[in-house]
Amino acid sequence: MTTDSLAVTMGEPSGIGGEIAAKAWRAIRAAGPSFFFVGDPDLLQDIPISIIASPSEASRHFREALPVLPIKLPARSYPGHPDPANAQAVIRSIETAVQLALSGQASGIVTNPIQKSVLTAAGFRHPGHTEFLGELAGGDRPPVMLLACPGLRVVPVTVHMALSEAVRSLKTALIVEHGRTVAEALGGDFGIAAPRIVVAGLNPHAGEAGTMGREDIEIVAPAVAALRAAGIDARGPLPADTLFTPRARAGYDCALCMYHDQALIPVKTLDMDGGVNVTLGLSIVRTSPDHGTALDIAGRDQADPGSLVAAIRMAAEIATARARGASA
Amino acid sequence: MTTDSLAVTMGEPSGIGGEIAAKAWRAIRAAGPSFFFVGDPDLLQDIPISIIASPSEASRHFREALPVLPIKLPARSYPGHPDPANAQAVIRSIETAVQLALSGQASGIVTNPIQKSVLTAAGFRHPGHTEFLGELAGGDRPPVMLLACPGLRVVPVTVHMALSEAVRSLKTALIVEHGRTVAEALGGDFGIAAPRIVVAGLNPHAGEAGTMGREDIEIVAPAVAALRAAGIDARGPLPADTLFTPRARAGYDCALCMYHDQALIPVKTLDMDGGVNVTLGLSIVRTSPDHGTALDIAGRDQADPGSLVAAIRMAAEIATARARGASA
Repeated sequence: MTTDSLAVTMGEPSGIGGEIAAKAWRAIRAAGPSFFFVGDPDLLQDIPISIIASPSEASRHFREALPVLPIKLPARSYPGHPDPANAQAVIRSIETAVQLALSGQASGIVTNPIQKSVLTAAGFRHPGHTEFLGELAGGDRPPVMLLACPGLRVVPVTVHMALSEAVRSLKTALIVEHGRTVAEALGGDFGIAAPRIVVAGLNPHAGEAGTMGREDIEIVAPAVAALRAAGIDARGPLPADTLFTPRARAGYDCALCMYHDQALIPVKTLDMDGGVNVTLGLSIVRTSPDHGTALDIAGRDQADPGSLVAAIRMAAEIATARARGASA
Repeated sequence: MTTDSLAVTMGEPSGIGGEIAAKAWRAIRAAGPSFFFVGDPDLLQDIPISIIASPSEASRHFREALPVLPIKLPARSYPGHPDPANAQAVIRSIETAVQLALSGQASGIVTNPIQKSVLTAAGFRHPGHTEFLGELAGGDRPPVMLLACPGLRVVPVTVHMALSEAVRSLKTALIVEHGRTVAEALGGDFGIAAPRIVVAGLNPHAGEAGTMGREDIEIVAPAVAALRAAGIDARGPLPADTLFTPRARAGYDCALCMYHDQALIPVKTLDMDGGVNVTLGLSIVRTSPDHGTALDIAGRDQADPGSLVAAIRMAAEIATARARGASA
């Protein structure tokens, strides 16, 4: 187990990030894993905090108070009312966390949800969190979003685009690239010795032998064949509707899905203990809760920290697996 | 409660239809609802059966033996090996059940899964079960497929077609037509006084204000407005990924989905007690289990009758609701 702590970003200050960080600290302070908050201390209510100057101080304070590496907001934040004046501080929280992870001062980062429209208005030019992180800490291949909940891991091959565009952009090489990143991550980050990957069909019933679309024959099946040729235990294309039944879920370690909702619907339908978003293919460990800023309930003490807690635990597990792999 | 019995078709004889009909009879013989099997008596193993000449005899035999209105197969059926020689008998089982329901001799029909490819090879020219029933017993509007499991009902607006074609065929009028059929059925068939319908967006995040596709603004939103103008409690378009969380599910009676997998993934992911397929907009009551012929496990006594039992119970409830409505 690494003695380093995880960096948790502040996310959108007018959302629930501060509240769930405080609640997450309460939930795991006794047993860890240790983390520190990178953001404005004023966002943390009703818990003891400890201002730190360096991440190395975090673990020794963690049981008594939530360590905070302070980034002050220039404007006061009101729950539910994002202010573009604070956008640069939100971005700086992410950049700081990433730099600390890159330099080995943090064991990984856990990001609270951001309000993209506010950041965009302030000049943020990335399609999302993951793409921004890809630029800051990317590897050889583009970063890949994996969603996990107890008993299910899914990866969408196409993500934030219109469904018609997802159909058009689906290419064999894209599926293969994702499959390789996933296979490596299941081994290195999740400690699965012989990962089993299933690949969902694009069309209903995976196209039913070409009678409902040719993509599963012409695009998806060759990708599965290429992954198998590369020694990866991949199966598919399989009908997506029956791929997430309790029985089917038991038969694989990750489902590669062809578009956003095909991947996210089953995870959020289950949503037992809070899903976790993991970014694969970065040089650092990064997870996040699978919900948004929840502006509608911000400041009301109603937010559930379950997904953030799960994200923190998973980041710590991945960091440990990577450290073990590096020392092996 | 009607004293009529439900007609259960034989479905693909080499599949699990006979096995689950026998198991369903064992499960509900004591308390009903009463049903009879329309098919070859040889498909029913290890239970007492009672050959009947008319559906009116069914309910009086039901507690002691499964009533069978016989349709002999011309060729012997081997589990897992469909024979086109039996296709006409399979079709006749469906036609017979429909005629009995149309004439009021059966309170409704519950159809076992068919193997479409075998029927097609024998000249069956319908895209599926539902379309065939629409021709035999259709109403003013095309039949609509509703999938139900405990706590969730979904309806796909487009069904058996390539995903790219589903995107192209999505029209405001089609969504409105489905919404009206669903609203009427939730009231008349399911006894929900003020049905609440949610409408899923086509694109991720329901298009996020048009940044990921314009269809949700130009096609789906006007349909929701038209449904509301018609006095129907419809909301949407809503992001599909968060529409099926446990919390979200509690807020509506049916989710109108834009394509096959968007509707079927959440129901089959939950799949607690067996999903049920209900055909809305027919002049007769029709339900079916939400699984296929399961040729791979046919003849091995492994098939779970849960979905068929749920389909039988739901058909009986709908028949009762309709009878009550007709006499009100």
